[in-house]
Amino acid sequence: MAKKKSAKLKARLPRGFVDRGPAELLAMEQMISVIKQTYELYGFEPVETPMFEYTDALGKFLPDQDRPNAGVFSLQDDDEQWMSLRYDLTAPLARHVAENFESLPKPYRSYRAGYVFRNEKPGPGRFRQFMQFDADTIGAPSVSADAEICMMASDTMERLGISRGDYVIRVNNRKVLDGVMEVIGLAGDEHAETRLTVLRAVDKLDRLGVDGVKALLGAGRKDDSGDFTKGAGLGDAEAEKVLAFVEAGGETTDQTIENLRGLIADSKTGAEGVEELATMGKLFDAAGYTDGRVLIDPSVVRGLEYYTGPVYEAELTFEVKDEKGRPVRFGSVGGGGRYDGLVSRFMSQPVPSTGFSVGVSRLMAALTTLGKLGQEEIAGPVVVCVMDKDIDSIAHYQAMVQDLRTAGIRAEMYQGNPKQFGKQLQYADKRNSPCAIIQGSQEREEGEVQIKDLIEGKRLSAEIEDNKTWRESRPAQFAVKRDELVAEVKKLLAAQEEDRKNQSEN
Amino acid sequence: MAKKKSAKLKARLPRGFVDRGPAELLAMEQMISVIKQTYELYGFEPVETPMFEYTDALGKFLPDQDRPNAGVFSLQDDDEQWMSLRYDLTAPLARHVAENFESLPKPYRSYRAGYVFRNEKPGPGRFRQFMQFDADTIGAPSVSADAEICMMASDTMERLGISRGDYVIRVNNRKVLDGVMEVIGLAGDEHAETRLTVLRAVDKLDRLGVDGVKALLGAGRKDDSGDFTKGAGLGDAEAEKVLAFVEAGGETTDQTIENLRGLIADSKTGAEGVEELATMGKLFDAAGYTDGRVLIDPSVVRGLEYYTGPVYEAELTFEVKDEKGRPVRFGSVGGGGRYDGLVSRFMSQPVPSTGFSVGVSRLMAALTTLGKLGQEEIAGPVVVCVMDKDIDSIAHYQAMVQDLRTAGIRAEMYQGNPKQFGKQLQYADKRNSPCAIIQGSQEREEGEVQIKDLIEGKRLSAEIEDNKTWRESRPAQFAVKRDELVAEVKKLLAAQEEDRKNQSEN
Repeated sequence: MAKKKSAKLKARLPRGFVDRGPAELLAMEQMISVIKQTYELYGFEPVETPMFEYTDALGKFLPDQDRPNAGVFSLQDDDEQWMSLRYDLTAPLARHVAENFESLPKPYRSYRAGYVFRNEKPGPGRFRQFMQFDADTIGAPSVSADAEICMMASDTMERLGISRGDYVIRVNNRKVLDGVMEVIGLAGDEHAETRLTVLRAVDKLDRLGVDGVKALLGAGRKDDSGDFTKGAGLGDAEAEKVLAFVEAGGETTDQTIENLRGLIADSKTGAEGVEELATMGKLFDAAGYTDGRVLIDPSVVRGLEYYTGPVYEAELTFEVKDEKGRPVRFGSVGGGGRYDGLVSRFMSQPVPSTGFSVGVSRLMAALTTLGKLGQEEIAGPVVVCVMDKDIDSIAHYQAMVQDLRTAGIRAEMYQGNPKQFGKQLQYADKRNSPCAIIQGSQEREEGEVQIKDLIEGKRLSAEIEDNKTWRESRPAQFAVKRDELVAEVKKLLAAQEEDRKNQSEN
Repeated sequence: MAKKKSAKLKARLPRGFVDRGPAELLAMEQMISVIKQTYELYGFEPVETPMFEYTDALGKFLPDQDRPNAGVFSLQDDDEQWMSLRYDLTAPLARHVAENFESLPKPYRSYRAGYVFRNEKPGPGRFRQFMQFDADTIGAPSVSADAEICMMASDTMERLGISRGDYVIRVNNRKVLDGVMEVIGLAGDEHAETRLTVLRAVDKLDRLGVDGVKALLGAGRKDDSGDFTKGAGLGDAEAEKVLAFVEAGGETTDQTIENLRGLIADSKTGAEGVEELATMGKLFDAAGYTDGRVLIDPSVVRGLEYYTGPVYEAELTFEVKDEKGRPVRFGSVGGGGRYDGLVSRFMSQPVPSTGFSVGVSRLMAALTTLGKLGQEEIAGPVVVCVMDKDIDSIAHYQAMVQDLRTAGIRAEMYQGNPKQFGKQLQYADKRNSPCAIIQGSQEREEGEVQIKDLIEGKRLSAEIEDNKTWRESRPAQFAVKRDELVAEVKKLLAAQEEDRKNQSEN
């Protein structure tokens, strides 16, 4: 037992971590089940890696981290080696594939949902532990694999109940941006840092707008709080080229491709990127996905450093009201891209790969807002009240519960302090119980039990002015023979179910 | 992209962590689903807490830890506070309940499956990340709540397919041991350490036998490796008393209760414990669980320090062969008990509680050994082979896959390098695909596709001597019209399913 302390411990969670209750867990389970079915249909199979990896195996690919090891939870093992909690599901997958390369089917098509950890300053909607749901094709050299994953992302949105037109999968290619950077003189290892700064500036288009990005491409930007972020130091002409790339999206795919061709001049990398985009565009077209579901959009670059080719993002385009009642877009709920260099960090051969990651919490929030998730009431257990505390009575109540459970009915005996009967009914109410079972000594002598219909009871207090119909159809409490208990509870549950159906139809 | 390095990174996991593939994940999902249904039927509802807690909120209750903080993964947050990864699901639940006490229903009946972490030396079957599945009733003063959880543990075993007689739920009470210790003069705060040493000695009965426990109750014990563990320092007479307690189990519950009454003399705590055991025994009896499912057994004490009353353990009693072919019992797959002091560490009022934890991996291993889990073959996707690489052909293959998926058939286009056709079939084989779809330029001109039955193909090579029947009933490869592809694949899948059924019936 814990030793007594004069000051009590405070029950609280570290910042950025949350607990989840039944409604949220049910919604999460339902959503994950739909995503899983979609990925399975596409031929992907599940795999799971642990929360910890060696720090060097994870690599340092997180955006917006200035300090070494920032963004990651790390600790030193007994043998002095550094381990980290995974910050995404892609780096661990790369390690898994490299470690089991001989035995895995190739290409290796896998999916996994799991928690990832970011050691960052938490904020509204920003957590330090959150769930991602990824699918990846490892060992796939052609962009047909990228195109497939984009179409799967689209299918996933629709299977989750998001209407066509309420979302879009935006597709771009890192090689095109690399080509543009070549054109403005940023090729070569000596400019690697600047290229990364450009990439991250462009990735902030959503949040900062064109002017913000322009500032970050140039000298730098001061934010609302007065903090200054150093920029990439490009001249105006160079910055304009990068912005022209970002804004190269045309009315049609062909138009966008044409615009991009104009920007990359004779860069070989750039030309490769444009051709890959054109190929993906044709595959989307042939499959019918260019009806607004999938869009080539040069403004998408993704913040993670390890992407090498196509990048893509799932965005919800419908508007919701923010806390001040202003309309805002829901925004990105997932993204991914090609990472040809990630697995080969461990191997002596190239392993071209591509994958997509869903931000589970964000998508859940969106689906809940749309009314597509978390709408059902969770039915509570039948509560058998404890009216007498002697062991014989307890055994009798326990037997009622057993009978109900054997019939498949969710049920429990009240396990709190039974002194106050009112508290037992309050408990049943709080659990959203369909009914309470009551047997005092008198009823027991007569071989009877009382069934108290708690749904009727609730309605009675809610609709007091129009209670004739229900009163005629169903009494709120009635006595039945003990050996008819299960049959009568079944009848009551069926009647309540019927009621709910009628209500939702009206 | 990662910078080039002369020495490649090694792809490996830190010790004590593992990856899980499709078969294991499917088995885990099935098992968890059955446990969940059982807990739901009993009226418990889901809750989830994050992996991290403040270190002080978790407390230090792990057995066998000599160093401070040993056994737990801890790190310091930016604000200098220590956080730890949870080592079980009970301590975080206590924090959750204390934090949300006003809003939760009371008693609060919840379940949760989740990974826990132990910073220990890993060994065979001992991992540093493993899954537990817990159910707890918080705010339940009577041992009827403990009895209910023991019966639920029994129901869970049977719903998972473990036969009656192949398992037992053993029940004991810490207060009885406390009573025995009172009798031998170990009452009072000054003996707290010794009492803990006695508890942990008794908890090792399983592994060390009576002699080992006796040594640990006395001066100490030298293990096979020569390491010496200091004992509790009891005299022979005192050690005998403790051993008499451990061996107090009689032929019947009444006999066991009588034996225990003799040992606790006039200890008030001891008498309370014996009465609680007697009450639980009566409830088990009334519910019919004393047919071997649940057993009062004084040898069970559980290693965790925070238990205050009833303790229980689910043990598999059937024998399996160890790696040397010797019969061994599977042993404990779960356990729990009453922890009246854990929630009230945070609160100014007592919060009596009890709970049970299943060791998911151990139980899974047992069920797999029994053939109750993980027996199904996982059906792979239909693989559409890539015979021509031009974009029009790819679009056509992609359309086939789309048609199959729209019909609900798991399917994918081969996404590896399509140069070698043989590799594509090898891939389909490794994925356990039902069939491969093949269309070269000639077939395409004729509006046809080839369907290659891969299950027949496998059987052909396995049962070459007796292949007349199947050869007559189904050809291994056949051509169909492109627009009949989906219907023909459906037919083939149905025929394969029929086949499997016949085989498993024979």
